[in-house]
Amino acid sequence: MTEDLLPTLAAYEEAARAALSPRLAAYFLAGAGAETTLAANQEAFGQVSVIPRHLRDLRGGTAQARVGNLRLSHPLIVAPFAYQTLLTPEGEIATAKAAAAQGALMTLSAQSATLMEDVRANGPSCLWFQLYWQTTREATLALCQRAAWAGFQALVLTIDAPVNGVRDAEIESGFALPNGARAVNLTDQPQPNFAPLGEGESAIFDRIAHIVPIWKDIEWLLDNAPLPIYLKGILHPDDAALAMKAGAAGVIVSNHGGRVLDCAIASLRALPAIRQAVGPNAMVLMDGGIRRGVDIFKAIALGADAVMVGRPVIHGLAVAGAAGAAHVLRLLQDEFEIAMMLAGCRTLADISPECVHLNW
Amino acid sequence: MTEDLLPTLAAYEEAARAALSPRLAAYFLAGAGAETTLAANQEAFGQVSVIPRHLRDLRGGTAQARVGNLRLSHPLIVAPFAYQTLLTPEGEIATAKAAAAQGALMTLSAQSATLMEDVRANGPSCLWFQLYWQTTREATLALCQRAAWAGFQALVLTIDAPVNGVRDAEIESGFALPNGARAVNLTDQPQPNFAPLGEGESAIFDRIAHIVPIWKDIEWLLDNAPLPIYLKGILHPDDAALAMKAGAAGVIVSNHGGRVLDCAIASLRALPAIRQAVGPNAMVLMDGGIRRGVDIFKAIALGADAVMVGRPVIHGLAVAGAAGAAHVLRLLQDEFEIAMMLAGCRTLADISPECVHLNW
Amino acid sequence: MTEDLLPTLAAYEEAARAALSPRLAAYFLAGAGAETTLAANQEAFGQVSVIPRHLRDLRGGTAQARVGNLRLSHPLIVAPFAYQTLLTPEGEIATAKAAAAQGALMTLSAQSATLMEDVRANGPSCLWFQLYWQTTREATLALCQRAAWAGFQALVLTIDAPVNGVRDAEIESGFALPNGARAVNLTDQPQPNFAPLGEGESAIFDRIAHIVPIWKDIEWLLDNAPLPIYLKGILHPDDAALAMKAGAAGVIVSNHGGRVLDCAIASLRALPAIRQAVGPNAMVLMDGGIRRGVDIFKAIALGADAVMVGRPVIHGLAVAGAAGAAHVLRLLQDEFEIAMMLAGCRTLADISPECVHLNW
Amino acid sequence: MTEDLLPTLAAYEEAARAALSPRLAAYFLAGAGAETTLAANQEAFGQVSVIPRHLRDLRGGTAQARVGNLRLSHPLIVAPFAYQTLLTPEGEIATAKAAAAQGALMTLSAQSATLMEDVRANGPSCLWFQLYWQTTREATLALCQRAAWAGFQALVLTIDAPVNGVRDAEIESGFALPNGARAVNLTDQPQPNFAPLGEGESAIFDRIAHIVPIWKDIEWLLDNAPLPIYLKGILHPDDAALAMKAGAAGVIVSNHGGRVLDCAIASLRALPAIRQAVGPNAMVLMDGGIRRGVDIFKAIALGADAVMVGRPVIHGLAVAGAAGAAHVLRLLQDEFEIAMMLAGCRTLADISPECVHLNW
Repeated sequence: MTEDLLPTLAAYEEAARAALSPRLAAYFLAGAGAETTLAANQEAFGQVSVIPRHLRDLRGGTAQARVGNLRLSHPLIVAPFAYQTLLTPEGEIATAKAAAAQGALMTLSAQSATLMEDVRANGPSCLWFQLYWQTTREATLALCQRAAWAGFQALVLTIDAPVNGVRDAEIESGFALPNGARAVNLTDQPQPNFAPLGEGESAIFDRIAHIVPIWKDIEWLLDNAPLPIYLKGILHPDDAALAMKAGAAGVIVSNHGGRVLDCAIASLRALPAIRQAVGPNAMVLMDGGIRRGVDIFKAIALGADAVMVGRPVIHGLAVAGAAGAAHVLRLLQDEFEIAMMLAGCRTLADISPECVHLNW
Repeated sequence: MTEDLLPTLAAYEEAARAALSPRLAAYFLAGAGAETTLAANQEAFGQVSVIPRHLRDLRGGTAQARVGNLRLSHPLIVAPFAYQTLLTPEGEIATAKAAAAQGALMTLSAQSATLMEDVRANGPSCLWFQLYWQTTREATLALCQRAAWAGFQALVLTIDAPVNGVRDAEIESGFALPNGARAVNLTDQPQPNFAPLGEGESAIFDRIAHIVPIWKDIEWLLDNAPLPIYLKGILHPDDAALAMKAGAAGVIVSNHGGRVLDCAIASLRALPAIRQAVGPNAMVLMDGGIRRGVDIFKAIALGADAVMVGRPVIHGLAVAGAAGAAHVLRLLQDEFEIAMMLAGCRTLADISPECVHLNW
Repeated sequence: MTEDLLPTLAAYEEAARAALSPRLAAYFLAGAGAETTLAANQEAFGQVSVIPRHLRDLRGGTAQARVGNLRLSHPLIVAPFAYQTLLTPEGEIATAKAAAAQGALMTLSAQSATLMEDVRANGPSCLWFQLYWQTTREATLALCQRAAWAGFQALVLTIDAPVNGVRDAEIESGFALPNGARAVNLTDQPQPNFAPLGEGESAIFDRIAHIVPIWKDIEWLLDNAPLPIYLKGILHPDDAALAMKAGAAGVIVSNHGGRVLDCAIASLRALPAIRQAVGPNAMVLMDGGIRRGVDIFKAIALGADAVMVGRPVIHGLAVAGAAGAAHVLRLLQDEFEIAMMLAGCRTLADISPECVHLNW
Repeated sequence: MTEDLLPTLAAYEEAARAALSPRLAAYFLAGAGAETTLAANQEAFGQVSVIPRHLRDLRGGTAQARVGNLRLSHPLIVAPFAYQTLLTPEGEIATAKAAAAQGALMTLSAQSATLMEDVRANGPSCLWFQLYWQTTREATLALCQRAAWAGFQALVLTIDAPVNGVRDAEIESGFALPNGARAVNLTDQPQPNFAPLGEGESAIFDRIAHIVPIWKDIEWLLDNAPLPIYLKGILHPDDAALAMKAGAAGVIVSNHGGRVLDCAIASLRALPAIRQAVGPNAMVLMDGGIRRGVDIFKAIALGADAVMVGRPVIHGLAVAGAAGAAHVLRLLQDEFEIAMMLAGCRTLADISPECVHLNW
């Protein structure tokens, strides 16, 4: 622990906004468009209150979560986010050390600025690898196989960003990737090579739509990939059902932290219907809007098996590198256990819809 | 493209407010009264969120819309607004060039500061002409016929402003039409010549009510006009049904951008019931509150065939003339296509009420 | 008309706040407690939107209202408020002149700083007199009789203030009645003469409750008074029904402008149930929160026969005396007629609940 | 009364915030976490409006409340809060004098900085003693017995804080108990002596959960304690029912003033279901969010027999010691009686759910 550590999660957020340049703050913290979804994600949590139970026997309880074949000490997973060397010199390795220190599962972004093999070597709990579709089935599968060889145990395929969202803040800040930040794991991947648009043709429908995956591609990948795959970015119950039917390891309810389609529904608002659609046994994770330990509690009450957190980790990294990220994870874990005790829940199974009151 | 172009739609709005004099800002951008409806129009969009679908085959999709007998590249029409020479020297011709550059249908205001024939000559996509009732049936029909001779293909009759609204901002700013801005297409139209009010008489009910149209006049006009006519300003389902029954080409759900009856219901709130009332085949357009491409998506999901935009075009004109207006239209079109892809919609027919979640 | 006249109702409000001393602003414009009800009155209007109808034949329409045996040019009555000489030297006479100039019925407050006979002599449309219960039946009746002799045609008995509310703003401003402002019509009225409180006695329940009226007193007064009496301050449907059953001329739905019981329900929220309770033929007035002509429309749509306005008249008086008050009344009347035309209503009977959409 | 007394409850709050050091303000006035529950407590009151009745006979009415075997002059009890010597030199004795002066029941905190016997000796109306579970049954019972010997007549066992909440404001302020403020009544109580955590052990579930009480402990205490015990911190109807079944004297609906589990449901929101669960005869108190006399009225309307107030008393103490606290209590009592009269309620039994309108 360094003297840079801050006492509260809110203090990390405030300090990170001050520490980051406006361009980096725009890149890492802002949302798409008018940031409607970014705000809605947090507002949805604010509209859920907890109805605690008291005086129950909580001895021997635990915050442990099962996610796939992993048993996690807490239902808290580091979300994938790109180019972490922009936040702290060690980049993804700092995050991996932080996650390992707190026993938190980490998801490495395919847009990592550090080689996946190096992160794995420094990150015993960095067991998941996130990727986007790589233009072709073969290129996508090759990336999956490399992740398997590197020792990752599951994959997270992000499906909600066939095109970038319109990120006003990032655009207005003039953000561009600085020298030295590269997606080093993707240097050999095929790049789309589009013919010029003809009269009346649409870049979206006549070019990009030809290289983005459809369900048949996903089914093929799920059949051929060497690792279980979670589909990230699901917001509609029918898509969740299709994902599970296609053989996904689980679904991650997400709107990409409000960074892709502005005005997409808040993740937490989408969660209950998705849990309903896939049944009690499917793996359902979520992200978007979690800032405090009690938010994890609320997400689990509304159907999540575990949650992913991105921005709080960014705050920790920006303020104090690995130690900051570790501290943020620890604060979230501690707050979550405190919330469990204060709400009278001995295990995650006790955290049910009856524990919360919805004001929406 | 000039160096004046700005990176985002929000930047255009902010810059336009700075570029316009307070009086012009009050005239072009403000609403009636306490601007309750102006705000409600946008708030209604904010209360709609999108539930995207993923991994669908979008190849060969299109944002094309059919409006009457026109096929538009996008369901985005330039709304009529008056005296555009106050915004940029070329006035309506600048807007017409911008619309043509982006393939957008433009509606010319009868209160154009430029002769309709000149705009038509410079505006291949300026195909609609908007007018108010001209005191008498004959004068109104004559204006319609002149528009037909000028090559316009449809008319938009605005019916929601038999009197002006009470525009506080405009009044307080001291706005008056400057020299050189005139409704040059209306110089020969008859002006009302009211007798002085007698004891107990009301200007509204005993004078103005005698020169404004009623349904019988509209039916006559629809029977006699040389062009199809859309009725603009409809907010009640029964009025929409009456319009279609009378032979209107379609209805335009609108509260005049919040500029006439302050406290009128938000256009988007009124839209679903109107679509319900007229059935799936009637042409239903809307305006009021659209600021981003995703707003077009929401309007279509709730029943519109296409939308009209006014203020965003004003922003573009005020900042950078024709180039600015063209850029704004392009940003809206691009954002709309991106929203379609991110929401998993291949054509406008895919954009249904199931794509959105209403928080009202 | 003087050059002091302002262009909009909002401008009068802003200017009045600037023109009045903090103490007078606190006395005339503030509400009780945390001003929750004061705000709620206006918020309730903000939650009602109008769904206009178009193209109806409005010729020969009128804004006339029938209130008791009076036919008013508009459903707009000046509410009673005290000590008007604090606002403008002529005091109540200025208001009476303004009301007469606009043909508006005025209600004179019993706490007038001007003799009722003098106001009547200068106020042909000052036909209503407002009073509180005067400790005894006899004293109350005597005041009613004096009003009848003075030529008033109806009485308004305010029943919602058996004790003052807790007016924080007034208390904190240090307001006290300045020399020269006196309730000159009440100088001979009996004053309560309370015995000192004994151990465990309550000023409220053991003193004040003994001198405030109960339904039996009101029934007696209604039987004996020389004029019809409206009961002002009703918020509960059952009280409205009791009032009508007891023989009141009508009820005035009011929370005393948010000046007595802070947290009382907004008048407009209470109105529909009260109209429902008393049936279509009973006279139902309302006040509280009306700032624009369209607010009058909303109140009538939700069941009022006419409305009372206080603060807007105060604004006018404070800014420009009688001329200001007259101008404010005229702006309200004009805005109301404009709202009628824009909403497609030819008479007050057309203004029904179907004309509005409730967002509460 | 000193010249320090302020005219309104709001003035006391504002002045207290100015008078207290940031650290003391953080300790006494802030809430846990993001202060969501602190705000929600007050917002819930803001969403309740009163529908007054008029012209009823209120002679001989009273604000008296029965709580257990006590008859209180008002349904207003001083809530327990710790270390009052930090607010005013006399500490709890100042509060006790204030409570006695206004005839208000006071609850002494076990974390009193003054010996309970000394407070009792100076506080004829300080009849309740609040405590937390003291690690063991025996230690808890011993504390209860000492309170009984000291003359307290009932106990309040706070059950909602088995661990502290995460109090950001307090943490960030750097608050630590200054020298001289000690929980002098607890000096002999056993302190938990935890073994170091082993691999994978949780401080919450493997240590703290072993020393906090469960229902069996409470049942034992209720069977053996020399005084009736109220359980404080109940928010779930089932816990309320369990408490009454176990023999509690009553339940206190509370979220600890938003100071423990941030995001816990607002007390007032939880109240109606709890009254419903325990039936009309059980004693149900509440605290959290009461700032004005009318708030007491609302709480009673929604099911409370009486309320506890903490922060307003803190405001009074911080501004003007015992006199300030007494004045605050008096203002609350007076405002409550005024609200009763204005709402037409002669006794607490008249204050029913029909008296309020819920906007939630």
